[in-house]
Amino acid sequence: MLYEYDALSSMRQPDVVVFPRTTEHVVQIAKAALRHNLPLVARGAGTGLSGGSVATEGGILLVFSRMKQIVEIDLENQRARVQPGVVNLDLSLAVADDGYYFAPDPSSQKACTIGGNVAENSGGPHTLAYGVTTNHVLGLELVLPDGEVIHTGASHWDQPGYDLSGVFVGSEGTLGVVTEATVRLSRKPEAVKTLLAIYNEVVGATRTVAAITARGITPAALEMMDGFCLRAVEEATHAGYPMDCAAVLLIEVEGLREAVEEHADEIEAVCRENQSREVRRAKSAEERDLLWKGRKGAFGALGRISPNFYVQDGVIPRTRLPEMLDFIGSLEKKYDLHIGNIFHAGDGNLHPIILYDERNREQIARVISAAKEIIMRCVEMGGSITGEHGVGLEKSDLMPLIFSDDDLELMGRIKNLFNPQGRLNPGKLLPTGKMCGELRGGLMGGGVV
Amino acid sequence: MLYEYDALSSMRQPDVVVFPRTTEHVVQIAKAALRHNLPLVARGAGTGLSGGSVATEGGILLVFSRMKQIVEIDLENQRARVQPGVVNLDLSLAVADDGYYFAPDPSSQKACTIGGNVAENSGGPHTLAYGVTTNHVLGLELVLPDGEVIHTGASHWDQPGYDLSGVFVGSEGTLGVVTEATVRLSRKPEAVKTLLAIYNEVVGATRTVAAITARGITPAALEMMDGFCLRAVEEATHAGYPMDCAAVLLIEVEGLREAVEEHADEIEAVCRENQSREVRRAKSAEERDLLWKGRKGAFGALGRISPNFYVQDGVIPRTRLPEMLDFIGSLEKKYDLHIGNIFHAGDGNLHPIILYDERNREQIARVISAAKEIIMRCVEMGGSITGEHGVGLEKSDLMPLIFSDDDLELMGRIKNLFNPQGRLNPGKLLPTGKMCGELRGGLMGGGVV
Repeated sequence: MLYEYDALSSMRQPDVVVFPRTTEHVVQIAKAALRHNLPLVARGAGTGLSGGSVATEGGILLVFSRMKQIVEIDLENQRARVQPGVVNLDLSLAVADDGYYFAPDPSSQKACTIGGNVAENSGGPHTLAYGVTTNHVLGLELVLPDGEVIHTGASHWDQPGYDLSGVFVGSEGTLGVVTEATVRLSRKPEAVKTLLAIYNEVVGATRTVAAITARGITPAALEMMDGFCLRAVEEATHAGYPMDCAAVLLIEVEGLREAVEEHADEIEAVCRENQSREVRRAKSAEERDLLWKGRKGAFGALGRISPNFYVQDGVIPRTRLPEMLDFIGSLEKKYDLHIGNIFHAGDGNLHPIILYDERNREQIARVISAAKEIIMRCVEMGGSITGEHGVGLEKSDLMPLIFSDDDLELMGRIKNLFNPQGRLNPGKLLPTGKMCGELRGGLMGGGVV
Repeated sequence: MLYEYDALSSMRQPDVVVFPRTTEHVVQIAKAALRHNLPLVARGAGTGLSGGSVATEGGILLVFSRMKQIVEIDLENQRARVQPGVVNLDLSLAVADDGYYFAPDPSSQKACTIGGNVAENSGGPHTLAYGVTTNHVLGLELVLPDGEVIHTGASHWDQPGYDLSGVFVGSEGTLGVVTEATVRLSRKPEAVKTLLAIYNEVVGATRTVAAITARGITPAALEMMDGFCLRAVEEATHAGYPMDCAAVLLIEVEGLREAVEEHADEIEAVCRENQSREVRRAKSAEERDLLWKGRKGAFGALGRISPNFYVQDGVIPRTRLPEMLDFIGSLEKKYDLHIGNIFHAGDGNLHPIILYDERNREQIARVISAAKEIIMRCVEMGGSITGEHGVGLEKSDLMPLIFSDDDLELMGRIKNLFNPQGRLNPGKLLPTGKMCGELRGGLMGGGVV
């Protein structure tokens, strides 16, 4: 039962759970799955928010918790070779003393694995400056559903030939199973400044995001929380967030000492021009860590005040944040719901959080309608149905909103090339043609975003 | 005859040359090619150095010089939509007044087209800091060889679904014909400093490259020229390069004023620690432009002193530059040849230039042997057979040096998916199984690197 759900929802038990230790184990398991015509689903830490690692059709679940070796660290060439079960943060910790880290930082980074990050093309608060997982993957070893081992990418970023790494990163386990990844290590910046800008009106915060962009400043992170969320966070973590405001921005700038100072000053000025009542700067590493702990633990904090909540994940052009927040506010009224807002604002990546109680079936219908209106509006604004949580089970049937039949047919051809029988992670990513009843009936109960 | 060669060599006239103006034209041409079972080859400006746009088996040559419209500039979201025939530099000029530019900067940027950049995944001196073309492509419209139009990528960098843009970028025209590209526009930095570090011994320059890397500084560009090349450059351009030294490094740092100043000071110190006899800083934009004009015109300058030359393009870990330069020096003696060295040193991307006279058949044999030894050594050092010039005709038969049979078979499957009859740019990228006699007999006569 531990393996029947991930951070989206509970779905179905796999028939078999296996814990490979080597690529050869994975090959043998894949061959066994082929012989017995069984689905094969890979799973890292199960922190995914779109149901990507749930064995919806049963079969074999490949759990990578025993393939967690950092195989090689090559600082001179700024890369590491890791097994898929290595926990994201563990890689950064392993190279921290040498001044390096692994840049993609999902909020679940203490638990989630690099194999899962590759499958979902994970982002995080610092995606704004450093890109998502695909920007940090140099090469992959994968096992195809018939047990064939393939290698993609290599040492240099303009490796000749077709760039297949990019196809596999973000393919959500539907094309191959990652058994080893070669990833880029990044240099830690010389200096970091973390600012907390406080607003009495949400619109000031969203305007600040657009204004920072317009000035041509790219902070390392630019996060927004509304008053509702940050009061929940403050009560849970005592990070020092103000209890009486409408919104905060958490802004981080990194680089050389002087540049960081100058950027921080410029950002502070932009915040004040846009009606920030106060801009605080973290005075120590501890204060900074506490602010981030609050942000990264926000969803846990919301779990304290609501029996259930549903996290939507959409993307819009960041210039349209004010308009989108007004729209979400109107949905709160229309559907009589509480919706909190935590955004990777710099990316235009929204995480509206709709509170509900799963015992209230009528309320669930309203939650689903509101969530759907939000995602439809994202699409209308020229955005996307998911920013970083993936399509998985949850949104496979929304794919036609952003892709034409021809686009989807093309993706189907790619899938058929590597996963011709569809036994690898069935029912994920591409539309199945049927709406997912279980999901609609049982929305998620928590998760780390 | 104008269309029978590119910057690698002269090969064969196409049977038909067409100049489409619209995607629909390309569709109709592709359908005609399908009906008559003719090869279809796309060509931008013909500046490619690996024969990628030569119609080796005749057929239809699609020349994009009439599809050079910048369709849309969207500064707010830092992107532009362009037709494939837009000249690389023209896009940067179109947005320069607004403080933006298109980052990939091949030395041929005054002539080469964005469609060609996408096909070859082009780099340039500033690739070191900003990545190659694939890092700046957000989406593509392509025509497949049967006339089908497909779209890849989109607005957000974590678009769900399979990331097909990455497969097409760098596929050298063997999977589809680009008819429109959506590319990222980058902000121009606040400040730029250009340093010229001068060395009496080459080894000081190569050690400096490794030392700058070891300090964790990533300059925007880090180029090396040996004394032989820079004397040719200076005679041709009067850019102010010293005539009496063994090597120079051309180093550029970009960013905020203060950061740039600090980085420039730190780099200067590293240069001096590694026996640079003098470090000059460009005092004005004109001085900077002149230094770059010299560097980017280096191959033209060499054309003044040798009837022919062959430019090799290989990659090694940058830490092994000193060793590689010694090796190239030993080949000069072994084969009695002049070999100049111009490197994107920060990337470990070598461009050894072997001078020859095409009338001397016996000398050509020595050139080929030396070029081959260089590339074999790159592979032995864990590098690659090409850094940025592509595989094309020139190196398709070297692909097995860096890819296993399984890897190549996998690439073949991708090719068969999009280009099942192999009519699209035949004979390029993947091994043909036969060595290319014509090429070996007639090495290139010039080119822009």
